[in-house]
Amino acid sequence: MIDNFVKNILVALLLFSIKINGQNAVADRYNLMPWPQEITSNTHKVIIDENFTVSINKNEGRVYNYAVNTIRRITNRTGVFVNKGFPVIQDKKATVKIYFTTVADLIKKVDESYTLKVNETDVEITATTDVGALRGLETLQQLITYDDHSFYFKGAVIKDTPRFIWRGLMIDVARHFQPMEVLKRNLKAMASMKMNVFHWHLSDDQGFRIESKTYPKLHELGSDNLYYTQNQIKEIVAYADALGIRVVPEIDVPGHATAILTAYPELGSKDNYTYNIERFSGVFHPTLNPINPKVYTFLDNLFAELTPLFPDPYFHIGGDENEGKHWDENHEIQKFKKKEGLKNNHDLQTYFNIKLQKILKKYNKKLMGWDEIMTDGMPKTAIIHSWRGVNEGFEKGTLIEAVKRGYQAVLSNDYYIDRLQSVEHHYLFDPVGNEKLTQEEEKRVLGGEVTMWSELVTPLTVDSRIWPRTAALSERFWSAKNVKDLENMRKRLAVVSLHLEELGITHLKNRDQILRNIAKTQQINSLKTLTFIFEPLKIYTRNKGGVEYKTYSPFTLFADACSADAEDAYHFNKLVDSYLEKPIDADKKELILFFNKWINGYKEFKTLSTNPLLIQLEPHYKKLNELSQLCIEVLEGNKISEDKKKQITSSINYLKEPLVDTELVIISSIEKLLKQQTKKSKA
Amino acid sequence: MIDNFVKNILVALLLFSIKINGQNAVADRYNLMPWPQEITSNTHKVIIDENFTVSINKNEGRVYNYAVNTIRRITNRTGVFVNKGFPVIQDKKATVKIYFTTVADLIKKVDESYTLKVNETDVEITATTDVGALRGLETLQQLITYDDHSFYFKGAVIKDTPRFIWRGLMIDVARHFQPMEVLKRNLKAMASMKMNVFHWHLSDDQGFRIESKTYPKLHELGSDNLYYTQNQIKEIVAYADALGIRVVPEIDVPGHATAILTAYPELGSKDNYTYNIERFSGVFHPTLNPINPKVYTFLDNLFAELTPLFPDPYFHIGGDENEGKHWDENHEIQKFKKKEGLKNNHDLQTYFNIKLQKILKKYNKKLMGWDEIMTDGMPKTAIIHSWRGVNEGFEKGTLIEAVKRGYQAVLSNDYYIDRLQSVEHHYLFDPVGNEKLTQEEEKRVLGGEVTMWSELVTPLTVDSRIWPRTAALSERFWSAKNVKDLENMRKRLAVVSLHLEELGITHLKNRDQILRNIAKTQQINSLKTLTFIFEPLKIYTRNKGGVEYKTYSPFTLFADACSADAEDAYHFNKLVDSYLEKPIDADKKELILFFNKWINGYKEFKTLSTNPLLIQLEPHYKKLNELSQLCIEVLEGNKISEDKKKQITSSINYLKEPLVDTELVIISSIEKLLKQQTKKSKA
Repeated sequence: MIDNFVKNILVALLLFSIKINGQNAVADRYNLMPWPQEITSNTHKVIIDENFTVSINKNEGRVYNYAVNTIRRITNRTGVFVNKGFPVIQDKKATVKIYFTTVADLIKKVDESYTLKVNETDVEITATTDVGALRGLETLQQLITYDDHSFYFKGAVIKDTPRFIWRGLMIDVARHFQPMEVLKRNLKAMASMKMNVFHWHLSDDQGFRIESKTYPKLHELGSDNLYYTQNQIKEIVAYADALGIRVVPEIDVPGHATAILTAYPELGSKDNYTYNIERFSGVFHPTLNPINPKVYTFLDNLFAELTPLFPDPYFHIGGDENEGKHWDENHEIQKFKKKEGLKNNHDLQTYFNIKLQKILKKYNKKLMGWDEIMTDGMPKTAIIHSWRGVNEGFEKGTLIEAVKRGYQAVLSNDYYIDRLQSVEHHYLFDPVGNEKLTQEEEKRVLGGEVTMWSELVTPLTVDSRIWPRTAALSERFWSAKNVKDLENMRKRLAVVSLHLEELGITHLKNRDQILRNIAKTQQINSLKTLTFIFEPLKIYTRNKGGVEYKTYSPFTLFADACSADAEDAYHFNKLVDSYLEKPIDADKKELILFFNKWINGYKEFKTLSTNPLLIQLEPHYKKLNELSQLCIEVLEGNKISEDKKKQITSSINYLKEPLVDTELVIISSIEKLLKQQTKKSKA
Repeated sequence: MIDNFVKNILVALLLFSIKINGQNAVADRYNLMPWPQEITSNTHKVIIDENFTVSINKNEGRVYNYAVNTIRRITNRTGVFVNKGFPVIQDKKATVKIYFTTVADLIKKVDESYTLKVNETDVEITATTDVGALRGLETLQQLITYDDHSFYFKGAVIKDTPRFIWRGLMIDVARHFQPMEVLKRNLKAMASMKMNVFHWHLSDDQGFRIESKTYPKLHELGSDNLYYTQNQIKEIVAYADALGIRVVPEIDVPGHATAILTAYPELGSKDNYTYNIERFSGVFHPTLNPINPKVYTFLDNLFAELTPLFPDPYFHIGGDENEGKHWDENHEIQKFKKKEGLKNNHDLQTYFNIKLQKILKKYNKKLMGWDEIMTDGMPKTAIIHSWRGVNEGFEKGTLIEAVKRGYQAVLSNDYYIDRLQSVEHHYLFDPVGNEKLTQEEEKRVLGGEVTMWSELVTPLTVDSRIWPRTAALSERFWSAKNVKDLENMRKRLAVVSLHLEELGITHLKNRDQILRNIAKTQQINSLKTLTFIFEPLKIYTRNKGGVEYKTYSPFTLFADACSADAEDAYHFNKLVDSYLEKPIDADKKELILFFNKWINGYKEFKTLSTNPLLIQLEPHYKKLNELSQLCIEVLEGNKISEDKKKQITSSINYLKEPLVDTELVIISSIEKLLKQQTKKSKA
């Protein structure tokens, strides 16, 4: 008895437990993302060696296959040759022991909570459902760390459960088709970030991407031969289900329908109009005719065919951005509106949506749609998908309005990662914000969804637009509201970014491929240097009016190799701020290192044999080289002649101009630095 | 009239036509691979700008979709924004005009010849079949070159046709499963190299990789859940067909059958034996029982189910490496042999093969098998797939024997790229060689097949084992026998290697991914430096006895980042040879640059924070650093003390030892260099 007593005290001492909600010093010691609801640090180390094994309490549901992949990832990451490559059932001696009770059905609300304990020599993961166990396995992987001699699981006791039940990623496969492997690797990456809804934007003006047996012209004439067969649809749904991810499909109607109307022009609102798959980006006029009974027969048959492919209770019907121009131009439609007392096109669209909602109900589906579907007649079973916020003139965003009116709602406004804004920008945006909501209203905020619109991405670049920023957003959707330390998030994100490669995510490696194509050689260091300080133009300015890029334009350009959150730029800009506040010598040295990096980059760049793609980059690189030399002179306290000052001004102005759809995101910092430094040298 | 006459003369002068067979100076001016049968150089330049268009004489067969992808590749490579993203039918003003007569059926012998003419302002591709036109489109892409201002097709007139009708690549998906996208990208790469047979090694001891509805346990128990559904099989066959590639499936029997017997142990040659999917590599004993009638019923039903999935007239049944140990241990089988007068296991296997051949005939398939099937009873309709040569004690190889005996034969001996030998080694090996064959015999040499056995490759690394070496082998199979200039081949291969990335081949980018995983950071330059001088151990010495690596061992190690033909090593070794022959100063400087690269590499390496994977590399890197410093001293003519000489010897000996399954392939050159130089300094 005494022995046990002493042992318990020792254990208690050993576990210098800092139980926290949200984050604090513990967050520096772990690279978990999304950050768990509760973590208690301890000093255990469970070493990963050849005896590493995983046990599951039963072989049911999703855990076995997931654990196989977990073992593969762990051995690949650590290089350990394990004796047992597959999980065992009920082995008390296993390194990792998983216990779960029930197999989850994703069409119901799923308990995703889990507990993870790193003990002295083993790890226990306990969950109510198999999906909870999967979430725990992802946390397990993030606990792997190392010293010189071994990889091990870092001690901790974690109790975790998501803040929101809807943590989604939408991929638009209409503007640019995304092949099966792109979806699969992104689903894996989602699961690794504990995300649970894949919203599949399957049709738009630029393409209809599902095989239809009832209306075969949809994929034959509306897809340029780039579509998923029904078998492939089922494959993706099953693949997602195995990862604990729901699939919510979207067929966008009545607008965004050019591809549908290319196949079946008789369903359009304009007679004798030639519909062609759209090649540009933007909002277009082709719209289904809401007063044509054939349209409803078509939708009824189509949904009868397609809804069984998707087990999820929700079906997304888009419903956004229909300006109704073709309705206005159709005399019959105008007459109908008058007759039915429909005041405007908005009312007409409501008329359409209500009919659609009834069709979907026949097939046991609830409707989900973008903001615009929120009209008086829409039943409260619908989910409002909020995409509009301050940018579209809605100060509080439409989400708040929706939940106050009694709808469930999902937020995407400000999670538009295709706008290529910084990770901080998205990360700090909370679905509820500081809005005062009743408990009921707050419950109706289902969560958030990251939207990857694909006007400007191809299979080559889509990953680098989604990741790693979406990992930080998964934390916004999963973790406590007060988890928002930016520095700490960035530190963890850098680790996650590398781990995403294990799942096939190509954000790092495809950048280099694009640069090799530009340089026509493997010597790309000098170009890489540029991608660390240039970012693609943001918020759709890359594609002014949607007409600069067609769907078949090249997306292998310098802008495609660059991405949001250019790494050197982030560090350089911080360094400048800190130096301007307090000019310490170490910072000056580091600044000079940066300038020399760009000077040397240019030197190396000049050794490449030129081609039209390279030559475009030359003038900016040359100016950056010149400006960097001047910056060093300034920093070293040299006297700067008037001529040189003029040169500085003109270089800065030059470098503020976009470079083939990218911008130099260090230029304001350089300007600030030089302004202050030359002022100083005057004084 | 006179005008035209003058114009014709001018054109004739302009086209300083050097018509060649094989290669000569022209080969320096083009980066074509495989090298065409006939090429006449001219000075035309057809510029690729926004008006670039492709015309086809008719929308039939394979050309339209292939041309769409060609346009995508051209715009992606050049960055040109074309106005027309799709081919047009019969447009005389098009930039590239394609003419073909018939749509080829791959189950018959296909005419793959084509003619390509770069005229003053346009390009014409003419072919008898659509497949010929595809081959021409690949040549077209290889004619793209550039100056500072534009990309253009370089002038030439090409008449081309393959030397062999069988230019194959085998991928073993049994030892390590290869997902759909791996196969698809490799099929695209094959087509880009004008290869036309995909041999799909679908079953082996380590896995049975097709869904069987008749015998579902095959994929359920024999594949670890890694198999192709029948829909996926059809998808690959259709995908390959669209590229003009035949698919020859292989189900390996009666040996290499552990996976089959794991599912259906009653078909094995040993009673009460527990069969388990094999995890190691090598030759194993589990074998179908040739005297059990149920075995033939099984095979009959299985082939009845599977053969319709594959339109090709040939079905590969393996038939290799059955040592018959389990036969020897089975009393009934011994009795049977005696009764039937079968002298040995070889005879028994013949008995089995003949029965199999009859089953296949029922399903309209001809049999193909490895060497061992070439026995007296085997009908001459069978194709012998020769894998044995000098290494297996067959001095002339079995191919020659086969064609002399009246069989058609395909050569793989010496095209085993998984042995990781240099590209030169494989490239110089001719299927016929200097063998004196009659015309009839020579005709029976169908061609060659590159074999990618997958014991040591995963989806992450398989591309880097296949490519770029297989591109050089495609030239061996397509081009004239006398095309064998190694320097020139290497020059062209370097260009092809970059283009392979366009098709998704990951040989370059996945190396970096592996290095990031080893370094746990994006700072991998110092490791990359090593991969340019280290190569994986060759000819299966990496996996001694087949028992060091299991199928689920990690293949994310340093050896997996290295590949055959380490680039710096090649140049360094050549440089040493040339310097030893004639010690010129420029070469000395270049040598010193190399040594400094390794010294600086080590310096950078030491800045990385260590982990168990990195630490393994440290001692070799350190020695290389020390030795490099000594080499510089020696080259600079410094006096080398006895102590330092000892250090040199010991460093060299140390560096000759393998480093985590790789070898430093510059060490002999360094040894030679130092030996001669220190001798010189003595003199």
